[in-house]
Amino acid sequence: MNMTELKPANRVLMGPGPSDINPRVLQAMSKPVIGHLDPDFLTIMDEIKSGVQATFRTENDLSFVVSAPGSAGMETCLVNLIEPGDEVLICIHGVFGGRMADIAERAGAKVHKVEAPWGEPIDPQQVKMALEDMQPKLVAIVHAETSTGVLQPLDEISAMVHAAGALLVVDAVTSYCGEDLDVDGWKIDAIYSGTQKCLSAPPGLSPVSFSPKAVAALEQRKTKVQSWFLDLSMVKNYWAGAKRAYHHTAPVSSMYALHEAYRIVLEEGLENRIARHRRNHQELRAQLESLGFEFLVAEQYRLPMLNAVYVPPGLDEGDVRKRLLLEHNIEVGGGLGKFAGKIWRIGLMGESCTSNHIGMLTHALRKLI
Amino acid sequence: MNMTELKPANRVLMGPGPSDINPRVLQAMSKPVIGHLDPDFLTIMDEIKSGVQATFRTENDLSFVVSAPGSAGMETCLVNLIEPGDEVLICIHGVFGGRMADIAERAGAKVHKVEAPWGEPIDPQQVKMALEDMQPKLVAIVHAETSTGVLQPLDEISAMVHAAGALLVVDAVTSYCGEDLDVDGWKIDAIYSGTQKCLSAPPGLSPVSFSPKAVAALEQRKTKVQSWFLDLSMVKNYWAGAKRAYHHTAPVSSMYALHEAYRIVLEEGLENRIARHRRNHQELRAQLESLGFEFLVAEQYRLPMLNAVYVPPGLDEGDVRKRLLLEHNIEVGGGLGKFAGKIWRIGLMGESCTSNHIGMLTHALRKLI
Repeated sequence: MNMTELKPANRVLMGPGPSDINPRVLQAMSKPVIGHLDPDFLTIMDEIKSGVQATFRTENDLSFVVSAPGSAGMETCLVNLIEPGDEVLICIHGVFGGRMADIAERAGAKVHKVEAPWGEPIDPQQVKMALEDMQPKLVAIVHAETSTGVLQPLDEISAMVHAAGALLVVDAVTSYCGEDLDVDGWKIDAIYSGTQKCLSAPPGLSPVSFSPKAVAALEQRKTKVQSWFLDLSMVKNYWAGAKRAYHHTAPVSSMYALHEAYRIVLEEGLENRIARHRRNHQELRAQLESLGFEFLVAEQYRLPMLNAVYVPPGLDEGDVRKRLLLEHNIEVGGGLGKFAGKIWRIGLMGESCTSNHIGMLTHALRKLI
Repeated sequence: MNMTELKPANRVLMGPGPSDINPRVLQAMSKPVIGHLDPDFLTIMDEIKSGVQATFRTENDLSFVVSAPGSAGMETCLVNLIEPGDEVLICIHGVFGGRMADIAERAGAKVHKVEAPWGEPIDPQQVKMALEDMQPKLVAIVHAETSTGVLQPLDEISAMVHAAGALLVVDAVTSYCGEDLDVDGWKIDAIYSGTQKCLSAPPGLSPVSFSPKAVAALEQRKTKVQSWFLDLSMVKNYWAGAKRAYHHTAPVSSMYALHEAYRIVLEEGLENRIARHRRNHQELRAQLESLGFEFLVAEQYRLPMLNAVYVPPGLDEGDVRKRLLLEHNIEVGGGLGKFAGKIWRIGLMGESCTSNHIGMLTHALRKLI
């Protein structure tokens, strides 16, 4: 067996995540590991919890980090809130809405769906109509569809969901720390994200938060959560209990990275960070349009940090994307699901959201297409 | 909100894991992150898979790493092999056997149990008797009970399990890379471990392996795996499929660390590493006995890397353990479950398994007790 010395290429990460990592964050990971119950580590967890609350704009006490990637955060939100037989409404306008429906079905829910064509947001009127025929325990929707680049407005839908007495579950993996997101203001009951998008920490963790109403639903469960690893009735005692009871061994080094990434976000300020993402999106947009790329999504619903564009006719997208990666060290994302081979997804996330990144990408593209 | 600069103490990790990390492993984590579908990353995954195979001593093709800690590896093995209504036999002689039973019940299994007093191994005759009354789909057992320090012999039990036509599922979190473990030789069908014990990588990942017989059981499932995140029918296509299909975003930096940790294990050689753990265990044992500590476990069943000893009468164990940590920067583990307050668990794992570590610990203990 041959395990060679690790020499990863120095890529420029402009796909749908991971994004470039600040050297401060990489250095944080190289600090000495301490025990997952060390009082120093519990203090670090407390500070990370504050970071989760600040970045989600929430005072939710049950704000913490799942010790696994965003998909596990999605599963955490759904399997803790769903009991077998519960009716749920899932909004689907891309891969990740579909994934939520899949997870909800595995958890034993009766899943109702509201769907929009990929590349468009969910129409609130459809949600309203669906809620006239049923009383779901929860409504789940993706705020930033990573497969299509759609930014989903949530205010109207949130009001409808709460009028129907349901819980609102939101996927904010791609919008988190790069677009407006106001968990308390928008009355989101359960939310999950990832660390490797606009937060620019390494992939592998999922910040989540539950409202007091969602916590009440957890406490009223009649059945055990189907996943032991994700069961919040135990996880919460490690994050916030008086005794800080051992549940699983936390990924200490990844938590160091997350801690430093939060410090960087808070130094910049959330508002400044959001403005930076919007500003650079406009700059990239002009460049891409001049190169012949057209946007998939109508202007008002575009995610600034994830630019979904049609591959120009006649372009061998797989070949160009490969040359962009291997000859220019720049990663952009291909299409997912029904958009495979048809669109590119160009990320401007966190540390990768700079004018210099736009310069590198467009300079290389001009040579290749 | 106050997020201070991260300055973790420079601890000496001699508890039940995490263990000390080699600086090479910490440095590997500070290398630039690349995409989870980058061809360079897929090569790294291939090499890690070889590392999993070499360290488990198996040729199982379905050998990979769960993107979450050892508990999620445990859940991966059980929820993929169990369908609702399946009968399973779980051997319990400590916390982690109990955890397996809990997970199996959540997966809908009819759980039968064989139990031994904590601190003792499971008696093969009990397994034999249990198998006379039932035909379980699988028998699960802990090879190295981290809560008690017991090393469970597996050869006799493996023969019984296979004679009964069942699959053998083994927890090797603490024995992995520090004691004899021969997945193919012992006919283990599904095994999971952790990275933060004798492998001395940071916590957060779980190496696992499934035998061809276990893979056949996966393929014959009639129901979906209850967890989307852990569903091997999808995960395996990311690790080994012809298309390397996206499932979730892999924890890239943690995988770098694991890659380097495997290189270090293979440079030392598994046999040498096991011999080192046994040798240092004997040295620690003599020192601990001279200090008045008595072992919980009978000599022939002791785990070399996890020394469970009774707290000497009259010693305020919580206070001494705290002073050991805060005044001497040395972490040892307290008791879990019914042994809380009664035993200590002293780890000699991987990078923490040196004569110098024994010197530091016993020097400090002589001052404190």
